[in-house]
Amino acid sequence: MKVDGKDYRSVWLEDDGWSVGIIDQTALPHAFVTARLTTLDQAAEAIRAMRVRGAPLIGAVAAFGLCLALRHDPSDQALDDAAMALLATRPTAINLRWALDEMRAHLRNRPHAERLAAAYARAAAICDDDVRTNQAIGLNGLPLIEAARQTKRRPGPVNILTHCNAGWLATVDWGTALAPIYLAHDRGMVVHVFVDETRPRNQGAALTAWELGRHGVPHTVIVDNAGGHLMQHGLIDLCIVGSDRTSARGDVCNKIGTYLKALAAHDNGVPFYVALPYSTVDWTIDDGIAEIPIEQRGGDEVTRISGRTETGAVVSIALTPAGSAAANYAFDVTPARLVTRLITERGICAASRAGLATLYPEHALAAGKQDHADTANRRKQ
Amino acid sequence: MKVDGKDYRSVWLEDDGWSVGIIDQTALPHAFVTARLTTLDQAAEAIRAMRVRGAPLIGAVAAFGLCLALRHDPSDQALDDAAMALLATRPTAINLRWALDEMRAHLRNRPHAERLAAAYARAAAICDDDVRTNQAIGLNGLPLIEAARQTKRRPGPVNILTHCNAGWLATVDWGTALAPIYLAHDRGMVVHVFVDETRPRNQGAALTAWELGRHGVPHTVIVDNAGGHLMQHGLIDLCIVGSDRTSARGDVCNKIGTYLKALAAHDNGVPFYVALPYSTVDWTIDDGIAEIPIEQRGGDEVTRISGRTETGAVVSIALTPAGSAAANYAFDVTPARLVTRLITERGICAASRAGLATLYPEHALAAGKQDHADTANRRKQ
Repeated sequence: MKVDGKDYRSVWLEDDGWSVGIIDQTALPHAFVTARLTTLDQAAEAIRAMRVRGAPLIGAVAAFGLCLALRHDPSDQALDDAAMALLATRPTAINLRWALDEMRAHLRNRPHAERLAAAYARAAAICDDDVRTNQAIGLNGLPLIEAARQTKRRPGPVNILTHCNAGWLATVDWGTALAPIYLAHDRGMVVHVFVDETRPRNQGAALTAWELGRHGVPHTVIVDNAGGHLMQHGLIDLCIVGSDRTSARGDVCNKIGTYLKALAAHDNGVPFYVALPYSTVDWTIDDGIAEIPIEQRGGDEVTRISGRTETGAVVSIALTPAGSAAANYAFDVTPARLVTRLITERGICAASRAGLATLYPEHALAAGKQDHADTANRRKQ
Repeated sequence: MKVDGKDYRSVWLEDDGWSVGIIDQTALPHAFVTARLTTLDQAAEAIRAMRVRGAPLIGAVAAFGLCLALRHDPSDQALDDAAMALLATRPTAINLRWALDEMRAHLRNRPHAERLAAAYARAAAICDDDVRTNQAIGLNGLPLIEAARQTKRRPGPVNILTHCNAGWLATVDWGTALAPIYLAHDRGMVVHVFVDETRPRNQGAALTAWELGRHGVPHTVIVDNAGGHLMQHGLIDLCIVGSDRTSARGDVCNKIGTYLKALAAHDNGVPFYVALPYSTVDWTIDDGIAEIPIEQRGGDEVTRISGRTETGAVVSIALTPAGSAAANYAFDVTPARLVTRLITERGICAASRAGLATLYPEHALAAGKQDHADTANRRKQ
């Protein structure tokens, strides 16, 4: 997408042919800063410190992180160590593991001398694949926005609520939840986005508002508390959010607070859509609430916040009294029953095992075999 | 309650016998600042700028505001003008209108010469009445916390979620939602409060955390997004919130975001209690969602936030990109079906017309007569 008229992806190979460029998202929306990653440690730090974030993007950066490690040592041991270091940065998003598994499968049986070039090629392919995937999500989600436009009773734009940032900054380009919105806007549909600020890290107020603004999409920032009221009063036509991990039965793990908006959407008959690429589905997990590990981050993300002063300086300030403890759960799980439809690169489906089977029969088959084996094993016991 | 060992109410008559002392709550939690109100305009400004806030407290300060106006002109016209000016400061909380009506009813038929003394006496009585009311709410709510302690399966404290500030700072003393919690703590029960920070003005992080901390009640600040996740995982035993206006059928208008927590409580079988004095019930309104006016405040409360820097200075910083619009709805309405029980100074009741009738038969009778008259009128038409 464009920033000040120049085309950007959120991660790229630098002109030197080996170092990795990123947008340092911790500086947004106050400054547009790029950074150059030259080592595995820098890549891991960028993911851990959330300079890059968003499930698909951290997968892509992790893939490049392996490349940076292999420059110094192409051995199996180095590959495994680097993958472990990257995997430890963020526990919840499954795309990280998916990308590292992809890379390792691609490199495992190659001679050491070929590995580095193969790694860069595969990392680039993961990035290009993510862009195509998100374009397909955009095309598949577009009819849902069109349908909301047709059934909406009030005049005015189609009002869409989104939570956190599942835009192009969360992916390599286009975004997941925002892809259908960008496409609708580009095709001339009048859309308006209510942007949850998404405390504690304010990815909505800082990133989603920024990227929608750069692209010219009309939007309004609201506090995370406001969405229920808006839905009660018919001011939201549909919700679209992303996912950090989706279970095989359609439970959706996403930024903390997503579940509350899904409850409000359900209570008010507002469609609640989740946009995600195939790499976000964890076919090994059924019950998202019981089984997906929820990252707990530092309490200082709750007790403090950063922003810019009148003079343009960016400062961190304390919000709470000295001595008050804080807890910081980064994600929650929205049960499948509250999700109207999943939007993936292959189409739209119900948030259920059967729904996912219509789009991913190869996984449903594998899962079915597993179920069968489990049943057979239980019978034996 | 105590601040640094000294007893405070949130509003008081100064030693001069006529000016009014308040805690300037906009300075909390970073500084404890008191202010002296000497004119009607200052009283109105204190309410409008939320130096004092909380439904019961703004009623009490408005009562004193009338006193300050009457010092200069005890006429009916001056009384009405002052009441109008105070009423215009905040549209949602019904206690403001209730207190002004109480004052006017008390003063209307008195000679001008007696009005000032009568006004100060009535304002003081409103304050004392509020304190007694809240103590009764505490006593009536205590068995609900005790019941949660007995039925709770996990070891550890009784975990209570609250939203916004319905503590002693929101009332003259003790608070509504926090009154049972203070009482439980004072009686030696092990309680722990999860405090929603309550964006945009962070009354939870700034005021509830501060007053719980001063009183020594264990608490943890969380972002408004986190409560649903905590309830899904059994980490909340009960919720208690306050109310800015409660309809005759038990719909509860309270700080924006309350509705989302009530939905999560309902979805997870967590009791959701609302503590309120009789003066918060609006017997003229049934459907809270359709009928209660929701205050919209400036977008800058969303796009900016205040806090203290490392050097102790309190600064306001921008959170959003330049050019992004913001909307700021201050309250939402939780439908009665999501409220487990109302806690008032008279006892505990179902959130329904019938429930309120068990505690307030005198109003139920009046409402019944009104229903009868309405029916008769419809028949005539």
